[in-house]
Amino acid sequence: MTDKEQKRVKVAIAGATGYTGAELVKLIVGHPNAELVAVTSRSYGGEPLDNIFPSLRNIVSIKCEEMQPENLFGRIDCIFLALPHKVSMEYAPIFLKQDIKVIDLSADFRFKNLLAYEETYQKHSAPELLQKSVYGLSEIYKNEITGNSKKEGASLIGNPGCYPTSFLLPTIPLIREGALNRQGIVSDSKSGVSGAGRSLALTSHYCEVTESFKPYKVGSHRHVPEMEEVLNQHAGLSSNSSNSEDKINITFVPHLLPMSRGMLTTIYAQLSENIKDNAYETILNIFKRYYSDNFFIRLLPKGKFPDTAHVRGTNFCDIGFWIDDKSKRIVIVSAIDNILKGASGQAVQNMNLMFGMDETTGLKLIPGSI
Amino acid sequence: MTDKEQKRVKVAIAGATGYTGAELVKLIVGHPNAELVAVTSRSYGGEPLDNIFPSLRNIVSIKCEEMQPENLFGRIDCIFLALPHKVSMEYAPIFLKQDIKVIDLSADFRFKNLLAYEETYQKHSAPELLQKSVYGLSEIYKNEITGNSKKEGASLIGNPGCYPTSFLLPTIPLIREGALNRQGIVSDSKSGVSGAGRSLALTSHYCEVTESFKPYKVGSHRHVPEMEEVLNQHAGLSSNSSNSEDKINITFVPHLLPMSRGMLTTIYAQLSENIKDNAYETILNIFKRYYSDNFFIRLLPKGKFPDTAHVRGTNFCDIGFWIDDKSKRIVIVSAIDNILKGASGQAVQNMNLMFGMDETTGLKLIPGSI
Amino acid sequence: MTDKEQKRVKVAIAGATGYTGAELVKLIVGHPNAELVAVTSRSYGGEPLDNIFPSLRNIVSIKCEEMQPENLFGRIDCIFLALPHKVSMEYAPIFLKQDIKVIDLSADFRFKNLLAYEETYQKHSAPELLQKSVYGLSEIYKNEITGNSKKEGASLIGNPGCYPTSFLLPTIPLIREGALNRQGIVSDSKSGVSGAGRSLALTSHYCEVTESFKPYKVGSHRHVPEMEEVLNQHAGLSSNSSNSEDKINITFVPHLLPMSRGMLTTIYAQLSENIKDNAYETILNIFKRYYSDNFFIRLLPKGKFPDTAHVRGTNFCDIGFWIDDKSKRIVIVSAIDNILKGASGQAVQNMNLMFGMDETTGLKLIPGSI
Amino acid sequence: MTDKEQKRVKVAIAGATGYTGAELVKLIVGHPNAELVAVTSRSYGGEPLDNIFPSLRNIVSIKCEEMQPENLFGRIDCIFLALPHKVSMEYAPIFLKQDIKVIDLSADFRFKNLLAYEETYQKHSAPELLQKSVYGLSEIYKNEITGNSKKEGASLIGNPGCYPTSFLLPTIPLIREGALNRQGIVSDSKSGVSGAGRSLALTSHYCEVTESFKPYKVGSHRHVPEMEEVLNQHAGLSSNSSNSEDKINITFVPHLLPMSRGMLTTIYAQLSENIKDNAYETILNIFKRYYSDNFFIRLLPKGKFPDTAHVRGTNFCDIGFWIDDKSKRIVIVSAIDNILKGASGQAVQNMNLMFGMDETTGLKLIPGSI
Repeated sequence: MTDKEQKRVKVAIAGATGYTGAELVKLIVGHPNAELVAVTSRSYGGEPLDNIFPSLRNIVSIKCEEMQPENLFGRIDCIFLALPHKVSMEYAPIFLKQDIKVIDLSADFRFKNLLAYEETYQKHSAPELLQKSVYGLSEIYKNEITGNSKKEGASLIGNPGCYPTSFLLPTIPLIREGALNRQGIVSDSKSGVSGAGRSLALTSHYCEVTESFKPYKVGSHRHVPEMEEVLNQHAGLSSNSSNSEDKINITFVPHLLPMSRGMLTTIYAQLSENIKDNAYETILNIFKRYYSDNFFIRLLPKGKFPDTAHVRGTNFCDIGFWIDDKSKRIVIVSAIDNILKGASGQAVQNMNLMFGMDETTGLKLIPGSI
Repeated sequence: MTDKEQKRVKVAIAGATGYTGAELVKLIVGHPNAELVAVTSRSYGGEPLDNIFPSLRNIVSIKCEEMQPENLFGRIDCIFLALPHKVSMEYAPIFLKQDIKVIDLSADFRFKNLLAYEETYQKHSAPELLQKSVYGLSEIYKNEITGNSKKEGASLIGNPGCYPTSFLLPTIPLIREGALNRQGIVSDSKSGVSGAGRSLALTSHYCEVTESFKPYKVGSHRHVPEMEEVLNQHAGLSSNSSNSEDKINITFVPHLLPMSRGMLTTIYAQLSENIKDNAYETILNIFKRYYSDNFFIRLLPKGKFPDTAHVRGTNFCDIGFWIDDKSKRIVIVSAIDNILKGASGQAVQNMNLMFGMDETTGLKLIPGSI
Repeated sequence: MTDKEQKRVKVAIAGATGYTGAELVKLIVGHPNAELVAVTSRSYGGEPLDNIFPSLRNIVSIKCEEMQPENLFGRIDCIFLALPHKVSMEYAPIFLKQDIKVIDLSADFRFKNLLAYEETYQKHSAPELLQKSVYGLSEIYKNEITGNSKKEGASLIGNPGCYPTSFLLPTIPLIREGALNRQGIVSDSKSGVSGAGRSLALTSHYCEVTESFKPYKVGSHRHVPEMEEVLNQHAGLSSNSSNSEDKINITFVPHLLPMSRGMLTTIYAQLSENIKDNAYETILNIFKRYYSDNFFIRLLPKGKFPDTAHVRGTNFCDIGFWIDDKSKRIVIVSAIDNILKGASGQAVQNMNLMFGMDETTGLKLIPGSI
Repeated sequence: MTDKEQKRVKVAIAGATGYTGAELVKLIVGHPNAELVAVTSRSYGGEPLDNIFPSLRNIVSIKCEEMQPENLFGRIDCIFLALPHKVSMEYAPIFLKQDIKVIDLSADFRFKNLLAYEETYQKHSAPELLQKSVYGLSEIYKNEITGNSKKEGASLIGNPGCYPTSFLLPTIPLIREGALNRQGIVSDSKSGVSGAGRSLALTSHYCEVTESFKPYKVGSHRHVPEMEEVLNQHAGLSSNSSNSEDKINITFVPHLLPMSRGMLTTIYAQLSENIKDNAYETILNIFKRYYSDNFFIRLLPKGKFPDTAHVRGTNFCDIGFWIDDKSKRIVIVSAIDNILKGASGQAVQNMNLMFGMDETTGLKLIPGSI
C-alpha cells in the first residue's frame, strides 16, 4: 500500500447528525487517506459532535457548523451531502462550480430521466446535472466513477438507495446477460429500522417496532422508479420508450424488521428460455464474471444463503441463489448493511474511486463476531 | 353464552413443556368449558409445571407425568399431542380406540397422500388413520371438524403447520374460485424464533438471532408438500396425478425473524385471465364470501396491511392485499401468531368445534397494547 | 362465580390512546363486570379506536371522543384518568361532584404532602382533594380502598407510579416491622421502554434503545419523593417533620432496558440489629404475614428470583430475596409488568375493590409461555 | 506512527470459535503489528474459520487446528488462551517454557491467593505460576505488564473477568485514596448475553432472553472473590489476613440483559469521613489523576452517565458518577463492551503493552453510530 504517498482528501460532511451522516464521520475519521475538515448540521450548529454522539468522545473533536458553502470553499476537495431530497439539489451546483467533488446520498442525482424523478419526488432545480451525474453503484459503474483513458472521472455521484443497491447488484448481471425473464420479477425486501433515519416517528418508536414485522408502502415505494430505470437501461431499454411491452416492471414489497441495521432482499424470477441445462453453473459463471474481482461482493457457496448478521458493520454485499430445476425459477438472496453498502460505506467507496485510491481503503471493516 | 350448561371437556396435554404445549396449558386453564386433567413430559416427569414455567405460579398447580396412555383412560375426553413427528403416530391410535379425541400438532396426520408424507418425513406406522383424520385448518374444514347432519364430526385432527396456515388461509379461496394462475405462486414467509421450539440449537441462540435476518431451508422446507397437497385438492387436482402439467408448485422461502412470536407471509401471484375489471372488488368479494362469518379472520381495509404485532397473543389471521392493475399481479399479506393460530390456538379452536362449542370459546384473547 | 348477579360498572377511559390508556381499554373490554362506555383522546377525537390500535379490530368498536365531562354525566360510574400530570387535577373534582368515582393514573393525587407535590411537579389546583384521595397501592391500602364497617370506600384513587409500586410492595412490610435500617436503602430499578409512553422522543427511538442500557435521571427522578413520603408514613415518621435525622432517604437509580414491558427493582439494605438468627425465616414470615392472602403477590421459594418475563402480561408482583448472613445485608428483588401492576392493571384492581368485587375479577391474565 | 519498523508479533489463538476467541481473531487480523499464525478449536479442527463465522469470508483465510502445543513452537511469539477454566492451566506452563508469552482469558491466573482460587474453581495444577502472573487490568497494572527499568515485563497475563473490569476500574482509585467506606459497597451489574458464551443453554435461548430481565447467581457469582482479592490488595489488606474486620466484602448482583453486547455496573458506596466539602471535585480529581492519560478510560462530564451503546464495539470504559451531598453517598456508573474491554480487547491491549507497542495499536475501534 502506498498510503503515505497518497495526498489526503479533505472532506466535509453535510448533515452529519443523521445516521448516515454520523456513519460517514466515523468512516472518514478512520480513513488513512482522508481528513475530516468540517461537518454541518441544521439542528446542532455550534455543538461539538461528540455531544450528540457520545460514542465519538476521544475519537472526533469537531464542532458542527451551519451550512454556509462559501465558508468551505478552498478548504475541501470533496463533500458528502447526507441531506434530505430537494436540499441536496440546491447545494450540489454551488460546490461543483468550485471544483469540489460532490457525493450526494439523497435521490436528487440518481435519475437520468427527469420526468421519472419529478413524478416520484418534486420539481428539480438542477436538471442539467442529471446527465453529468454518475449513479454510484460502485461495482457496476466503476469505469464512469474512476474515469478511464478517454474521459475524466465523476465529479458528482448520485449515491444509490439501500433497496436499489441490494436489488440491482444481483439482478443487473443476469439481466445484461439475458438470463432472466423480464416479466414477473419480484423483490421482497426487509430492512432494519435505521433506514428510516433518526427523525422521530411512531413507526420508529421502540415499542411499535420490537416484536413486530410488517410490510409498508406496498406498491408505492419511491425506490421502485429508481430500480426500474437502472434495470431497464441494462436491459437495453430506453427509459423514454415508456410504452414498450417489454419493459421491466418489478413487484417490490419492502418490510420493516425489528432490528436496527441490515437489509435482506429475496428476489424471485423465471430463468429465460436460453438457460438450459446446468442452470446453476451458468448463473454462477455470470456472477463470477462480474464480481470475482470485486472485494465487496461475496458470492456464497452452493446451498449457503446470506444473513444480515454476516455483513453487519461492513461494506459487503453477500449473494446466494437457488434454482428449482423443474420450474426453472430462481431465488436470489442478497444482504447488505443498509447504512454501509446501502449508504455511507458505498459513498466512501465512491470517494476512493473518484480520487484514484483502492476502493477498499478505509473500508476493510471487520464485523463483530456477534 | 351458555357456558354454565356446557359439560366441561376433560383434557390432557402431551408434551406440555415445549412452547406449543405450554401455550395449550394456558389456553385450557383459561377456558371456561375445559378442564386440565393431566400433562405429560418426557424430560420433566414428576416436576410441578410451574417449576418449569414460573410464570404459571398461582395459576396452574399440576405435576408433569410420564406418558402412560392407560393411566389416562377414563379420565379424559380429549388429548392434545404436542409431540415430535413419529411419536404422535404411535399414541394416536391408542387413544382413539378408547374414544378419546385426538388433536395432533405434529405432521403425522396432516397428509392424505401416504407417499408424500413418507417422502417428507418417515415411514408411517398408522397409515389407515390418514383418511380418517381431518386437516385442522378450522375455517376451511369446519364442516368436517364439527360434523353435520350426514356424518359425525372428527375424532382425529392433524393440526396444520404454522407456515401452511398463514399461506393456505388466503390462497384456498382464490384457488377454489379460479382467481389465480396456478403457476408461479411465491410464498415469502417470515417467522419468529419460537417456531423452532424450546430445544437448544445454535440457530436459536440469542446472540445468533438478534440483529440477524436470514432465509433457511431454501427449496427444501417440509411444509412445502403439506401446502401443495392441500392447495391442489382445492384446485380439484388429485394428489396422485402427480405428473399433471397443471399442478400447483409453489416457491416457498422461509426466513427467521429476530423476534419470538409472529409470522408474516407475503404471497405473490398472477391473477387469472378471467379476472377482468374491478379486480380488487372481485377478490375482496371472494374473501368476504369465505370469511365474513369467521371471527378469527380479519380482512383489512384497502391500503392496510397486516403487522405481526396486531395479532400477537391472539388467534387472529389478518389478511390484506394489493393488486397492480397494470400487470394484474396480486400481493397478499397474512399475519398470525405462530404459536396460536399457527399451532395451539387453532388446536383449541378445533377442540371447540369438535365438542360443539362456539369456536371462539376461551379464545377471545385480548392482545397487549404493545 | 356470581358474575351474572353483579351489576356491571360503567366505565370511561380518558386518554385512551396512550399505552396505559389502551391497556385499560383491553382490560375493561375483557372484564366480566364492567362495560366500556366512552373513551376520550385529545389527538384522535372522532376516530374509531381500532384505527389507532389495529390489534383491537373485531374486539372493540368505539370511537374516541373529545373530553367533555358533561357529556359523560349520567352515563358512567367510574372514570380512569390516563392523562398527564396537571390535566388530571382539573377533571377529577368535576367528576367527583357527580358521584363518579375517579381513578387517576397521573401523580396528581398520590401525595398527602402538598409541598412535596408542588416541589416535584407544579402548583396544585385541587389541594383539598389530597387528603380525601387514597394511594392505590392495592395490597397495602385495601381497607381504605374498599371501605370497612366504619367508613365508606375511596371515591378518588391516586394510582401509584410504576417504580414506587415495585419498590414499596417489598419494603413497606419490612419497614413497618422494623426489620431494616432506615439509612442507606438503595433501589436500583430497571424499566422497559413502554414506561416512557407513546410520545415520540429520541430516548424511545428504536435504534437508540436496542442494544443499549443506561441509567437516567440519576438523583433526580420524580418518583423519589413519592416513594419517600409513603415509606416514611409506614415508618411512623410524619412527612412534615422534615429535618428528622431518622427520615428515610433512599438512593434511587432508574435504568432503561432494551425491551418494551417489564420492571425489575433490586433493593439493597442493612437488616436492623433486632434481626438476629434465622434472618431468612424472620423476613420470610413478615412477607407471608402481609402477602399470603394476596393473589397478586407471589413470594418465590428460597434461591429463586424474579424475572420480568414471568410477570409479563399479568398483574403479578414477584418477590425474592437473599441475605448475606455475615454482613446482614439483604438483597430484595421485585418484578412487575410496568403497564399492568405498575399502572393499568393495578388501576383495575382498585376499581374492583372500590365496587365491591373480588380484586382478581378480569385480572386473572394468563401470561404467554414466551 | 512507526508501524512499519515494528516487528510483527506472531500470534496464535486457542479456542478461536467461542465469542471471545472469534473477537480476538478479528482484532489480530486488523492489527497493524500482529500476524495471525494459527487458531485452534476442539470442536472444529480442520475446518476453515470462515465456515464457522461466515462474516469472516474474504477477511481471514485460516483453518482451525487441533491444539498440539509442539506444533506451535517456533512459529509464535504469543498465544491467547480463550479456553475454559482448568484447561488453560495445563497449557500455559508448556508455552511459557518455550518463551512464548501467554495471555489467558480464563480465571486460572487471575488470583494470587491459591486458596481463594481453589475454593472458587478447583484444584490448581500450576500454582507456582500464580505469583509470576500479572493481573491484566491494563490501566492499573501497566508497569507490571510492560516492565520498567528495574524488571522485565510480564510473560503471563491473567486477563480479568468482565464484571471485575467494570467494577475495579472505578473503585480501585477511590479505595487507594481512602475515599470510600470499605463496608457496604454494592455492585449492581448488568450484562449482555454474549457474556455467557456460545455454548448452548436455555438461559441463552432467544425466546427465554428477549423481553426478559433477571438477576442470577445472587450471592454466589465466581467473580466476587476475584473482585474482593484485588480490591483488598489496593486497600492495603493482605488477602491472608482473612479475619480482618476491615476487609472489604462487596454485595454483588449480576443481571442478564436482553441484548448481546455491553455491560453496565452501578456502584453504590458511602464516601469516607475525610471527604468533606467539594466532594464532587475531590472525587473527580482522583479519577483524573489515575486516568487522564489513559486513552481507554473516558471520564464523563458532570451530569452525564454511561450508556452501553456508546462503548459498543470499542475498548473504552466510560465512567460517570453522582454524589448525594446530604447523605454523602456516591453512585458510580461504568460501561464497557463485555467482549472487548471485558475480555478480548483488553487482552490485545495487554499484548500491545507486553511487546512494547502503544496500548491503542489496532484498538482505535470506531463504534457504529447505532
